[in-house]
Amino acid sequence: MNYPIIAKLLSVIISTVALAFIASFFVGEVFYGEVDDAAREEWLISIAIALILSIIMAFLGRAARPKMFRKEALATIGLGWILASLLGAIPYYLILPDSTFADGVFESASGFTTTGASVYGDLSIFPRGLLFWRCLSQWIGGLGVVVFFVAILSFLGAGAKILYSHESSGTSTDIESGRIQQGVLQILYLYLALSAACALILRALGMSWYDAVCHMFATLSTGGFGVYNSSLGAFPSPAIQWTVIVFMALGGTSFFVLLRVMQGRFRALFTNTEVIAYYSIIGISTLMLTLMLMTELGHGATDWEASLRAAAFQTVSIMTTTGFSTVDYQQWLPVGHMLLLFLMVIGGCSGSTGGGAKVVRIVVAFKVCRLQIEKAYRTRVVRPLHINGKVLDKDDQDSIVTWLLLLFLVLTGGIMIVALLEHSLGFTAQVTSVFACLFNIGPGLAEVGPTQNYGFLREPTKLVLSLLMILGRLELYAVLVLFSPALWKRFS
Amino acid sequence: MNYPIIAKLLSVIISTVALAFIASFFVGEVFYGEVDDAAREEWLISIAIALILSIIMAFLGRAARPKMFRKEALATIGLGWILASLLGAIPYYLILPDSTFADGVFESASGFTTTGASVYGDLSIFPRGLLFWRCLSQWIGGLGVVVFFVAILSFLGAGAKILYSHESSGTSTDIESGRIQQGVLQILYLYLALSAACALILRALGMSWYDAVCHMFATLSTGGFGVYNSSLGAFPSPAIQWTVIVFMALGGTSFFVLLRVMQGRFRALFTNTEVIAYYSIIGISTLMLTLMLMTELGHGATDWEASLRAAAFQTVSIMTTTGFSTVDYQQWLPVGHMLLLFLMVIGGCSGSTGGGAKVVRIVVAFKVCRLQIEKAYRTRVVRPLHINGKVLDKDDQDSIVTWLLLLFLVLTGGIMIVALLEHSLGFTAQVTSVFACLFNIGPGLAEVGPTQNYGFLREPTKLVLSLLMILGRLELYAVLVLFSPALWKRFS
Ligand SMILES: [K+]
Ligand SMILES: [K+]
Repeated sequence: MNYPIIAKLLSVIISTVALAFIASFFVGEVFYGEVDDAAREEWLISIAIALILSIIMAFLGRAARPKMFRKEALATIGLGWILASLLGAIPYYLILPDSTFADGVFESASGFTTTGASVYGDLSIFPRGLLFWRCLSQWIGGLGVVVFFVAILSFLGAGAKILYSHESSGTSTDIESGRIQQGVLQILYLYLALSAACALILRALGMSWYDAVCHMFATLSTGGFGVYNSSLGAFPSPAIQWTVIVFMALGGTSFFVLLRVMQGRFRALFTNTEVIAYYSIIGISTLMLTLMLMTELGHGATDWEASLRAAAFQTVSIMTTTGFSTVDYQQWLPVGHMLLLFLMVIGGCSGSTGGGAKVVRIVVAFKVCRLQIEKAYRTRVVRPLHINGKVLDKDDQDSIVTWLLLLFLVLTGGIMIVALLEHSLGFTAQVTSVFACLFNIGPGLAEVGPTQNYGFLREPTKLVLSLLMILGRLELYAVLVLFSPALWKRFS
Repeated sequence: MNYPIIAKLLSVIISTVALAFIASFFVGEVFYGEVDDAAREEWLISIAIALILSIIMAFLGRAARPKMFRKEALATIGLGWILASLLGAIPYYLILPDSTFADGVFESASGFTTTGASVYGDLSIFPRGLLFWRCLSQWIGGLGVVVFFVAILSFLGAGAKILYSHESSGTSTDIESGRIQQGVLQILYLYLALSAACALILRALGMSWYDAVCHMFATLSTGGFGVYNSSLGAFPSPAIQWTVIVFMALGGTSFFVLLRVMQGRFRALFTNTEVIAYYSIIGISTLMLTLMLMTELGHGATDWEASLRAAAFQTVSIMTTTGFSTVDYQQWLPVGHMLLLFLMVIGGCSGSTGGGAKVVRIVVAFKVCRLQIEKAYRTRVVRPLHINGKVLDKDDQDSIVTWLLLLFLVLTGGIMIVALLEHSLGFTAQVTSVFACLFNIGPGLAEVGPTQNYGFLREPTKLVLSLLMILGRLELYAVLVLFSPALWKRFS
């Protein structure tokens, strides 16, 4: 294990957090209103802590050899997200009067993992700078996870290799190769371009600059943290809702495919199994929910645009695991409710900011199971499994299936721990809180439903759920390897 | 597809049901008391239907070529269990005044799959003959599943091959081989011997012959259908409870290993990973629950034998998925409650009458996941996976992991369908009813808890849950292949 290089990279991550603190501090200075102060002292303490830690890490990593392997990369990512969540907790803890540190960690992890679950019931007590920080952390987390996917996951085979299979050169295994650095830069530019477009459109449609930027953060990252107690309900404008629908959907699309489309290679849209499945599911679900709203549950709804919009909004918001809502979908017919639960588990595309199990894994899982059922009575028939028009080899199939098994074990373990810690909580909330956090959705059902929050849970539960958010966000492995003793051996 | 051979084998299965009807009819004649009549006419109708159907099937299969392949075997098993459940429903439907046919199907499927979930709240309205039928169906189902495992599952690789790995000759793939026929006979003798021993001991400890035989049926098959409303609570004798503990544990043990032990090859006990894990888990859980009962929740319990007995009884009853209870474990500490939920999912050994996911699959799942996590940072390290002191090859690992994935999909799909059909039911009951049926446990939680029953559900839900019981009992494949169109092609 090359410890200095880890320290060096962690120092970069911590510097990013420090910069984001400084930005939030200035936003607080500029936008604070009559009901809040700028919380100047608290921000300066937060910035100082982040800068000092960053300098210490840079010092520890000063003599780092540039050579880096997979395990250093994984450890950096896992530790980086945990450290960022801990640091990001400081402003919440210092600024909000009744907040414990565990509350801050939960909210901060929820932001960096784009989960959007909150322990705070009332946003009106937040100073504007802190609300900005809450939104900004999602945007940083969303960018981080896309870059992480490009830079690291391609080595893990957990679905990512499929995306590379279009490239003629095959998968690179050298982390320092120019191709990956170039890929990271291209993704960064794309993310910035989409962010600028989203914020400008929202501003043009009547939001203030502050609201436009904050909601852009929440939308593109599929995070779902708004700045008002009524969330996006504060903006009933159809144009704003359609804009948010489009950018949530883009956030949940594979950034690889988006990149190719931006480069004019539109063919990528029609050859990528995952993206086709993703938009097909969105289309079918929207259609079904629209019909449902126009008929049985319409309450006299004759406005087809409003029905279509509500249907598309809920479909996209849930499937990309953003967790925004414009209508109370808990009031919908059970068939609509079930459809939404189904979309939650599927989640967004791999290589996007969306959560869930990822569309491509579900597609592969169904294909593997179908072949296995046939194999039960036709032993000798070996059929290839196609994805993106190419054959997915056995190793990649295995890595996806094993990943889903691991997900199942983590879900089961998580539910047991939460049930143990919160035994007076209802079963529905015990189960859905784990799903909502591990899949980076945000709201669960019952006591942790869309109109509730996670504030009433015990401190240890909040920390466990925070860890589950990070586990889910980093595709399990980057956190699980941290518990593997062999990873930490000095020479190996 | 060789249809005649399927018809011929189904005729054998239907004849077995007819014979069991006749036995129940005679028991009803002999034991009926003042509160019930023998329901003579209803039994004769049931017997006639079964005999006629059996003759039709025998006629259709009269010219069957003896050659049989895996797909014929699978289709026979899947159809056989479904058909037996439908036929077995007739006596309930005819004899009980308020019973619908769906009620009968649920109860009958629950018996044949050794699930032990009931739609009838009050057993005191049952004639003795019908109660005997209810218990007997479990015993037939338990024997059936062990034979099914020997005869069929060895070809599917879903965990069964591991058990054969002790044999030097490897796995046979010829269904007509003498070795498998001999194996089936040996298992049959063992099952009869254990049944006789269990019934005689229960009789010697003070039960009536009727009670002894009925409770033996429920115990060895890990079914859990008793004959009194208070279930085994009607027998507070410690000796009877210890006897039931031992025979439930034996029912949940691999019959392959039991067979070897009976043949004097005791080494099998100490080299079989699954059996070691099974008894270790039972031991640890019993110890933990005993300590729990002796300390915090003891309510002044100073009787260590009673505590040990209660702990062992609940552990074994839950882990083997029998579902008997002597104390109300829902009142225990959450840590005890969680432990029991954990045991439910694991279930019994493969090749036993117990349900659940099976110990060996959980062991393999954990080993596969541990290796995969290490592989995340050490790509080139290939470690063998050991089970029963031998290396488990990649194909067998895959088949187990894929099976667990399939289980996950079936669970998710089942929960969604039940939630859709029973939208006014609580989430806890929606989820645990599917678990309790698919894993052949019996009671769930909340509205379908140990002191409740499934009678209030809608007809379609009862049929879906019945299908889930059969799916779980037949290790998924034997039922799922029935939905595969390619299976039914005339020539292939
Ligand atoms: K979210
Ligand atoms: K049972």
